[in-house]
Amino acid sequence: MTERNIRVEPIDRYAVEDQEVEIVERKGLGHPDSICDGIAESVSQALARTYLDRVGKVLHYNTDETQLVAGSAAPAFGGGEVIEPIYLLIVGRATKHYVDEDGTEYNIPTETVALRAARDYLGEYFPELEFGTDIVVDVKLGEGSGDLQEVFSEEGATVPMANDTSFGVGHAPLTETERIVLEAERRLNGPYAADNPAVGQDIKIMGKREGDHVDITVAVAIVDSYVEGMADYIDEVEGVREFVTDVANGITDRTVDVHVNTADDYDEGAIYLTTTGTSAEQGDDGSVGRGNRANGLITPNRSMSMEATSGKNPVNHIGKIYNLLSTEIAESVVSEVDGIRDLRIRLLSQIGRPIDEPHVADAHVVTADGVDVADIEDDVSAIVDRELADVTEITRRVIDGELTTF
Amino acid sequence: MTERNIRVEPIDRYAVEDQEVEIVERKGLGHPDSICDGIAESVSQALARTYLDRVGKVLHYNTDETQLVAGSAAPAFGGGEVIEPIYLLIVGRATKHYVDEDGTEYNIPTETVALRAARDYLGEYFPELEFGTDIVVDVKLGEGSGDLQEVFSEEGATVPMANDTSFGVGHAPLTETERIVLEAERRLNGPYAADNPAVGQDIKIMGKREGDHVDITVAVAIVDSYVEGMADYIDEVEGVREFVTDVANGITDRTVDVHVNTADDYDEGAIYLTTTGTSAEQGDDGSVGRGNRANGLITPNRSMSMEATSGKNPVNHIGKIYNLLSTEIAESVVSEVDGIRDLRIRLLSQIGRPIDEPHVADAHVVTADGVDVADIEDDVSAIVDRELADVTEITRRVIDGELTTF
Amino acid sequence: MTERNIRVEPIDRYAVEDQEVEIVERKGLGHPDSICDGIAESVSQALARTYLDRVGKVLHYNTDETQLVAGSAAPAFGGGEVIEPIYLLIVGRATKHYVDEDGTEYNIPTETVALRAARDYLGEYFPELEFGTDIVVDVKLGEGSGDLQEVFSEEGATVPMANDTSFGVGHAPLTETERIVLEAERRLNGPYAADNPAVGQDIKIMGKREGDHVDITVAVAIVDSYVEGMADYIDEVEGVREFVTDVANGITDRTVDVHVNTADDYDEGAIYLTTTGTSAEQGDDGSVGRGNRANGLITPNRSMSMEATSGKNPVNHIGKIYNLLSTEIAESVVSEVDGIRDLRIRLLSQIGRPIDEPHVADAHVVTADGVDVADIEDDVSAIVDRELADVTEITRRVIDGELTTF
Amino acid sequence: MTERNIRVEPIDRYAVEDQEVEIVERKGLGHPDSICDGIAESVSQALARTYLDRVGKVLHYNTDETQLVAGSAAPAFGGGEVIEPIYLLIVGRATKHYVDEDGTEYNIPTETVALRAARDYLGEYFPELEFGTDIVVDVKLGEGSGDLQEVFSEEGATVPMANDTSFGVGHAPLTETERIVLEAERRLNGPYAADNPAVGQDIKIMGKREGDHVDITVAVAIVDSYVEGMADYIDEVEGVREFVTDVANGITDRTVDVHVNTADDYDEGAIYLTTTGTSAEQGDDGSVGRGNRANGLITPNRSMSMEATSGKNPVNHIGKIYNLLSTEIAESVVSEVDGIRDLRIRLLSQIGRPIDEPHVADAHVVTADGVDVADIEDDVSAIVDRELADVTEITRRVIDGELTTF
Repeated sequence: MTERNIRVEPIDRYAVEDQEVEIVERKGLGHPDSICDGIAESVSQALARTYLDRVGKVLHYNTDETQLVAGSAAPAFGGGEVIEPIYLLIVGRATKHYVDEDGTEYNIPTETVALRAARDYLGEYFPELEFGTDIVVDVKLGEGSGDLQEVFSEEGATVPMANDTSFGVGHAPLTETERIVLEAERRLNGPYAADNPAVGQDIKIMGKREGDHVDITVAVAIVDSYVEGMADYIDEVEGVREFVTDVANGITDRTVDVHVNTADDYDEGAIYLTTTGTSAEQGDDGSVGRGNRANGLITPNRSMSMEATSGKNPVNHIGKIYNLLSTEIAESVVSEVDGIRDLRIRLLSQIGRPIDEPHVADAHVVTADGVDVADIEDDVSAIVDRELADVTEITRRVIDGELTTF
Repeated sequence: MTERNIRVEPIDRYAVEDQEVEIVERKGLGHPDSICDGIAESVSQALARTYLDRVGKVLHYNTDETQLVAGSAAPAFGGGEVIEPIYLLIVGRATKHYVDEDGTEYNIPTETVALRAARDYLGEYFPELEFGTDIVVDVKLGEGSGDLQEVFSEEGATVPMANDTSFGVGHAPLTETERIVLEAERRLNGPYAADNPAVGQDIKIMGKREGDHVDITVAVAIVDSYVEGMADYIDEVEGVREFVTDVANGITDRTVDVHVNTADDYDEGAIYLTTTGTSAEQGDDGSVGRGNRANGLITPNRSMSMEATSGKNPVNHIGKIYNLLSTEIAESVVSEVDGIRDLRIRLLSQIGRPIDEPHVADAHVVTADGVDVADIEDDVSAIVDRELADVTEITRRVIDGELTTF
Repeated sequence: MTERNIRVEPIDRYAVEDQEVEIVERKGLGHPDSICDGIAESVSQALARTYLDRVGKVLHYNTDETQLVAGSAAPAFGGGEVIEPIYLLIVGRATKHYVDEDGTEYNIPTETVALRAARDYLGEYFPELEFGTDIVVDVKLGEGSGDLQEVFSEEGATVPMANDTSFGVGHAPLTETERIVLEAERRLNGPYAADNPAVGQDIKIMGKREGDHVDITVAVAIVDSYVEGMADYIDEVEGVREFVTDVANGITDRTVDVHVNTADDYDEGAIYLTTTGTSAEQGDDGSVGRGNRANGLITPNRSMSMEATSGKNPVNHIGKIYNLLSTEIAESVVSEVDGIRDLRIRLLSQIGRPIDEPHVADAHVVTADGVDVADIEDDVSAIVDRELADVTEITRRVIDGELTTF
Repeated sequence: MTERNIRVEPIDRYAVEDQEVEIVERKGLGHPDSICDGIAESVSQALARTYLDRVGKVLHYNTDETQLVAGSAAPAFGGGEVIEPIYLLIVGRATKHYVDEDGTEYNIPTETVALRAARDYLGEYFPELEFGTDIVVDVKLGEGSGDLQEVFSEEGATVPMANDTSFGVGHAPLTETERIVLEAERRLNGPYAADNPAVGQDIKIMGKREGDHVDITVAVAIVDSYVEGMADYIDEVEGVREFVTDVANGITDRTVDVHVNTADDYDEGAIYLTTTGTSAEQGDDGSVGRGNRANGLITPNRSMSMEATSGKNPVNHIGKIYNLLSTEIAESVVSEVDGIRDLRIRLLSQIGRPIDEPHVADAHVVTADGVDVADIEDDVSAIVDRELADVTEITRRVIDGELTTF
């Protein structure tokens, strides 16, 4: 038995997998909102590591506000160009000056750290986007109002106190439709793109399931320098369609239709052609926290937190920690305990208490046929307890870039 | 019977009012995220009206991306000052040049219209915030990639086609906790603030109900020029506590505790004192779509759309329209049909079809004791049908500022 | 005799008044470069006064870098509008945080002080330009690298040391052409504009004298809301021409031709019509120090300093002080000593010496017929000495706004 | 005889070489004002070349307004770092959209062209300054108000009409002091820096000659990563002193003292150490046209034009063309005609006339002993005439980067 306030209860709805209509969406890596999420989180990791390297502990910061203003471009078969650069403003708070107990002063180059993180992130994931000319990156990091946080240091972590009432929610297992949407994007933006450079990073996937039929709608930016004409373009679109169909069929036995770039009109020449691989080059603005939740998906059928996870300080931002942790807990539980068809973990913080002692930690389950909640209650509870006890591990993994936030 | 695809079904969960734990949050008018929502929506309305006045129809625009970068301030009893101004960047797309069928050319001053809308909005709701000196407002409105939309003109409206797969969700009736949170903020920021100028606009309210006990936690920025010392400050905090307690007791018979500015530490002098009435003056950044949903609340117990409603074009942005419309429908249904304890309306668009013919319009109900879904199905269905037929009325009301979006 | 190194010598050229060709130019108050000069200097004065009020002495700052980016406008008879706002960025250095000898800490709101100064300056001189909507004013004031300067305080001034090798030059008396150019602009932008609101602030005057004929070319922005049509416009232009002709004839007996808005082409409708009274509204950028020298004129026939005077710290910026002081000295000398046809005062600083002891102070004179340099040498020298001794008075007068810098 | 209005006359002053006191200054390549000049001119050249490549002629543009806002840095022996990046805003006008006579449309990527030019310029001359992280470069290029200029095309150039009254002035030969200042900086920033990477680009040289003694004062930013301690620093300073002394002694037989980094205080550790080689990293802002004139020098002893030459359109900006051309003429004359001790060429434009027919072209000479103006008048006049006839060659050379502008 644990002292933590953990409840395991049946949920008062069907498993999402069993609901009649299911909608799932993922904004891929190159969607303007995801670009902002990715940069905000890179900046956060870079700041945390800089603080650890220099001061030995993570100081106060929060960089969860990046704004992208779209540029304009003139894509063309064989290679077009950016006409007006994308503008991206990194916004947030960071401790620039610090004096430790020994009186040693530190001036932390928070803004150059942030710019380098953005440059490196863009360089790694957006090969077609020239940093500084196709995209202008500026930064405004003010001093925060918050107190210093010294809870996470090289010597080890102590569990911080919750300083806000906040809420995190996680789910497991993913439904088939969710897995299709998530994996299709990840594999398109991973191995598939490596072999098919014409596939841009801006991939948006919508999954809609009605009963046993799944429609997967993919919008994928094609990079103009790799396609010489309409025939090439159509080949690329068809290639994506086939690839995603294969991904889907590997995950579900339901019938699946995959639709790619449905807004195209070949006769009008209206196609989704880009120079840089993202719609940010032409008219689509973006910002942090407007897209995927911490598990990488937008799932209207499930409880979601409004919290923007990317860019938040992983040492003390309770919303970030609880959203990531509840997802981790849910996944651990379903991988270790049989008989769970749907699980929702919710963590609600309690101001002034250590964050490993939430006000409520509730696990709502839909059990498989023949399994009773009582059969698994203790096992679930023990895993929740164990994971809560290990809460600072979330912080470490975020700083090390082992956890995705969007 | 209707040709629209309307379904009325039982929902597979308890009414939120009957769930064991309920969490509700509202970021008030002066929260940095809400400031962005409010300005984005004002800019949108101003642009729509400008287009109607000049061109006779609403042209393409989208202004749902405002970024606020916090300033710094030195509040002090009797009146402090802003040290570094807040920076606010209005971002979006708008049609700047238009030629109508007769060849008449129009140059639309979209950026000055946006700046004036922001100035007027701030002037109306933030009396302590000097425009241009306490807050610098800049604007970047690019040309969009979208086609012109001519569906909404002075002569009347035609129903536009959906150009995206999008989703809206609305709920009614509000639970007691939701009503307390929503009304408390609105009345604090309305009549109460009119009598108590020390109460700033940045009011954040969290409601947590466990069974039959409700905790309401209020964080309210106190304006320094109206409080001469700690005693005044404490009076103001106590006044808010009493007022919110009265509001709550007028709504529920459950037991209610109201907590105001719980992070204050009078001994340390650490209190929530501001010069301008918003935490944007010191360290809290903000952006659009990160806070309240279209119904003014954040409700983890309910399905929510991630869509940022504020600032979007109300003529053709299907996500904005469906979120507002589904909320309107839900409210109409529960006001006209007896026996509904909880109602969720979901609208899913169908690309290429008129937006009054959604792919799915489903009404999920929890009926009151003794009422069967079958008893009310036809009534509900008829109201959904009627409201969908009147979809362009949503557009008109948004443009006229009759509907709130956050 | 004085200890200062003062030389009085004949100049090795004719008096400018007697040269065959003379060119003079003045960019009036509303020229984009002058707008920047004016704002930079207002910001400087406001900061100096703020430091004096709060800390009792002027701290380190320098605000001589304002950049104006032109907007776009659609002027029209009867009243047009600004389409894209002017953007103005105030740049410089200022001390934001200060601890005095007693340990008292001061946080100086340098950025809000700067913004207010800009707002007030624009409000006073540019009635047609709406602050914050027709012109967006932003500010970037960094901390400087300079040491604190404590030389100018409420209790009185001590003479600072020169920390740079710098140079100032002043001339007197003005030639007739110079006086015409200077007075015409000042009176147009003063009493004449008060009676003729159609006359905008952007007035550029070029004077060219060849022998005894003077051509005055005036470019004056006409404000559209005060002219109903071409006839009104032509009346305004003609009015300016007559007024400037009268000004000129009151100053010189030479023949004078006045040309106003010579680039106009009435048939083509190409005229100098503006909505706000300045060409900054449409395509003309501006910055500090690019226009008038400290005496208000651009005089290629005379020695000029490249130093931007506006916005510099008047306590310790040796270039600013010496340019203003040498002009003051020159004017004092010619008003007190008869027989001087042309006088140039040059001051060259000596690093590490008090600024009232320049390395060189030389007075180069062209004497009137019958006067010898030896006749006036002692008088000139005494005045130079007296004025140098009173150098801190320049600082006081700059801070009090009694001296113009452009 | 020529039809051009060319006058050759004695000047009414001594040759500058023979004046008692002479002051000369040069702001080297890495001075914040020169960085702006250099970028403005690179952007101009890049735009001109882009227009020629794409449209076949140079379209309207003007990019003579770049603003640099200093960063902050923490230099340290062995290598410090930039704390807050430098911010540089490229400002100007450029034609973004053009339709030629055949109806072909062109969208010119003026902003990305400008950013690339800035990146390449910084990359070439500032190896220690990381583009995009040590320095953030942003751009605001509006559409201009000007008419299109089609005078300079691939097929050849026609002489444009002057559209403004403007003035250019050039001098030759340089005095010894001027040559020392100019050559010392160029050789320090050229071969010397190639061998001595510790020498930063920010080199400011002031020359003061009194009679036959010349003082050369050099302020040179030392790059921290190449100096391990104070001894190294002192070596570098001494090396510069010796090098400049050699340069000076190679040019003049007068006595010369060279002073380097005179503000240093080794005991206090107050030295001119930088991380990037420019004072822009810490506290020194900059803008275009505030430093060197077109001949690379600031020469208070000579007539100077206030015109900012860098960044202006070389096809039709009369001030730029005349300043460069008058300098070229002066140099040609003194290289081809013997007996000239000092020559000043002035060109004054005449609105509405071809620019090769100035209103006045006057050559003011100080002849060598035994030479009379009349002896050389025809030769001088012929060269002036020849060079004026070839005015469009100036445009070509500017576009090809063969002429320096600062």
